[in-house]
Amino acid sequence: MDTDSPLRIVQYGLGPIGQATAKTVIEKADAMTLVGAIDIDPEKAGRDVADVIGAEGPKAARAGVRVSDAAADVLAATNPDVVLHTTTSFLGGVTDQLVQCARAGAHVVSTTEELSFPYERTPEASTRLDRVAREEGVVIVGTGVNPGYAMDTLPLMATGVCTAVQGVHVERVVNASKRREPLQEKVGAGISTEAFEEKKAGGGFGHIGLRESLLMLADGLGWSLDAVEEELQPVHAEAPVDTGFRQVQAGEVAGIHHAAAGRMEGKSPLTLDLKMYVGAEESYDTVTVEGEPPINLRFEGGIFGDTATVGMLVNTAPLADRAQPGLQTMADLPVPRAFATKPLPKTAA
Amino acid sequence: MDTDSPLRIVQYGLGPIGQATAKTVIEKADAMTLVGAIDIDPEKAGRDVADVIGAEGPKAARAGVRVSDAAADVLAATNPDVVLHTTTSFLGGVTDQLVQCARAGAHVVSTTEELSFPYERTPEASTRLDRVAREEGVVIVGTGVNPGYAMDTLPLMATGVCTAVQGVHVERVVNASKRREPLQEKVGAGISTEAFEEKKAGGGFGHIGLRESLLMLADGLGWSLDAVEEELQPVHAEAPVDTGFRQVQAGEVAGIHHAAAGRMEGKSPLTLDLKMYVGAEESYDTVTVEGEPPINLRFEGGIFGDTATVGMLVNTAPLADRAQPGLQTMADLPVPRAFATKPLPKTAA
Repeated sequence: MDTDSPLRIVQYGLGPIGQATAKTVIEKADAMTLVGAIDIDPEKAGRDVADVIGAEGPKAARAGVRVSDAAADVLAATNPDVVLHTTTSFLGGVTDQLVQCARAGAHVVSTTEELSFPYERTPEASTRLDRVAREEGVVIVGTGVNPGYAMDTLPLMATGVCTAVQGVHVERVVNASKRREPLQEKVGAGISTEAFEEKKAGGGFGHIGLRESLLMLADGLGWSLDAVEEELQPVHAEAPVDTGFRQVQAGEVAGIHHAAAGRMEGKSPLTLDLKMYVGAEESYDTVTVEGEPPINLRFEGGIFGDTATVGMLVNTAPLADRAQPGLQTMADLPVPRAFATKPLPKTAA
Repeated sequence: MDTDSPLRIVQYGLGPIGQATAKTVIEKADAMTLVGAIDIDPEKAGRDVADVIGAEGPKAARAGVRVSDAAADVLAATNPDVVLHTTTSFLGGVTDQLVQCARAGAHVVSTTEELSFPYERTPEASTRLDRVAREEGVVIVGTGVNPGYAMDTLPLMATGVCTAVQGVHVERVVNASKRREPLQEKVGAGISTEAFEEKKAGGGFGHIGLRESLLMLADGLGWSLDAVEEELQPVHAEAPVDTGFRQVQAGEVAGIHHAAAGRMEGKSPLTLDLKMYVGAEESYDTVTVEGEPPINLRFEGGIFGDTATVGMLVNTAPLADRAQPGLQTMADLPVPRAFATKPLPKTAA
């Protein structure tokens, strides 16, 4: 693609993250152009994207893109450089979508959590995606704040200065009160312990992508794990919490505590510990590297996930063209950095 | 290069950092092989490298490499995949060395500070290095902890989650008491204020690479700076300090305070603030991003520079093959991560 002209972007999926992404693309009109939007929701298809996402101002008006439920038509008509794909967490249902985008000659940057390191859980889909991406000369990559940054790419980067590493331990605490409503629902805020256990037994509950982060970290370090152990527990509210979306009583589930450990020779040199719950006193991210030199890294206040996921999507778009074609991970791309930002306080568009 | 066989490494320069690097390469014998060592110092040339660097054990014995002052001979005889180059801070004197390594078909990973982002200060050398590297299909890249990580690549990565950035502010405080003696000398520990001002007026004093870090950060963000302002001041010892190498009296110079600001429209959206002095109460690194989301990142205890520079050199070696041939920066390579480390406590070699 021509890096001097604005990137031609199709937004595939207009849930809360997709809407925020489309809005950001529209805001960055000097560097990216929203040329298409895909969503199968009958409430959205056919409407102007600016209307669906609640974007206003001259940039939004200029976008003039109508949401369509016909992905093939949009891709054929718009010839995008990059598709920003935000539909579901699981690769099973979206492999065909990703293939379709790649076949249209577009790089695909997706929030599908299982895509962030898909080689273990979905080896066949991985092989297929890699083959198609190579054939088309494009990159397919999964990203977001987590997986994609906080518990994999960033800890990997923290080890970049080390001559020796014996262990990497990552902790992320998210006050879900401040996050979007679907996330509060996703972590089970306000349900009973019994309901939590039922959801857990049903599968697909907990933070999707934790295992992928652990595997990406191990792979980046060149470590062969004996096993991955995961544990999912409820965090209970100690006092009533009102998030504006949900009211949680003391004793009810406030959210999740999801941990994963990479096991080797009876020890756990890699651990990821994630708590996402409403009413958390503080949010933070820490990375501890046992190594030479030792690293103790902390994000005070954490990395605010809703915005950061959009940031990772939009910022990865221009990097896709700088990696080898194929199915890639964030560890294969150049260091992510903010794209098309303005250094000084915003002026009117 | 064949990524399944150990990387063939030539160590070019055996000062303190070069010696530590060679030692680390020897330690990682499963993944890298030290095939040659170059140094013009008559005290070192002709001797066994293990002897020069004080390496012991079976891995060191197995290396069996003699230090040579004849770079061309070493490069021709050893056919290295990567040259780790640690001679001086300034590009002027080493461009020919880098060209020679590239012409031998080797990637070059160098601690030459001015190489970390050489396009502004040495445009002609940059053009030449880029041309030679492309012709030979190799990467030439400057790295280290600073420049190379703490005040450029890492802050860039900190912005990777942001949809908007208005400013990036980086602070690094290094307790030079804990660092190698040449660094204590470099920051002027123990000299008088008059001597400091003389050195400053003489040029080439202060932290080499701060300007390069700032320019790399601006370039990564796509920001065009109006100007770069730099300020170098002494830090004075408030109490006597004995580092083991040097004794510094109260009132004498303890080290440097070197700051750089990227100016745009009368403001400083990019600032780098570096203090390196003996007797500092704590070392730390912080990155503050004014943006969406805001980022407040802190390395508690800092990033220990002597080890980290060696880490960056060794860890960048396998990444060179994964970037486009040419003169590159750390912003062009995949995320640095520890190479060839063992997850569990070391056992005897």
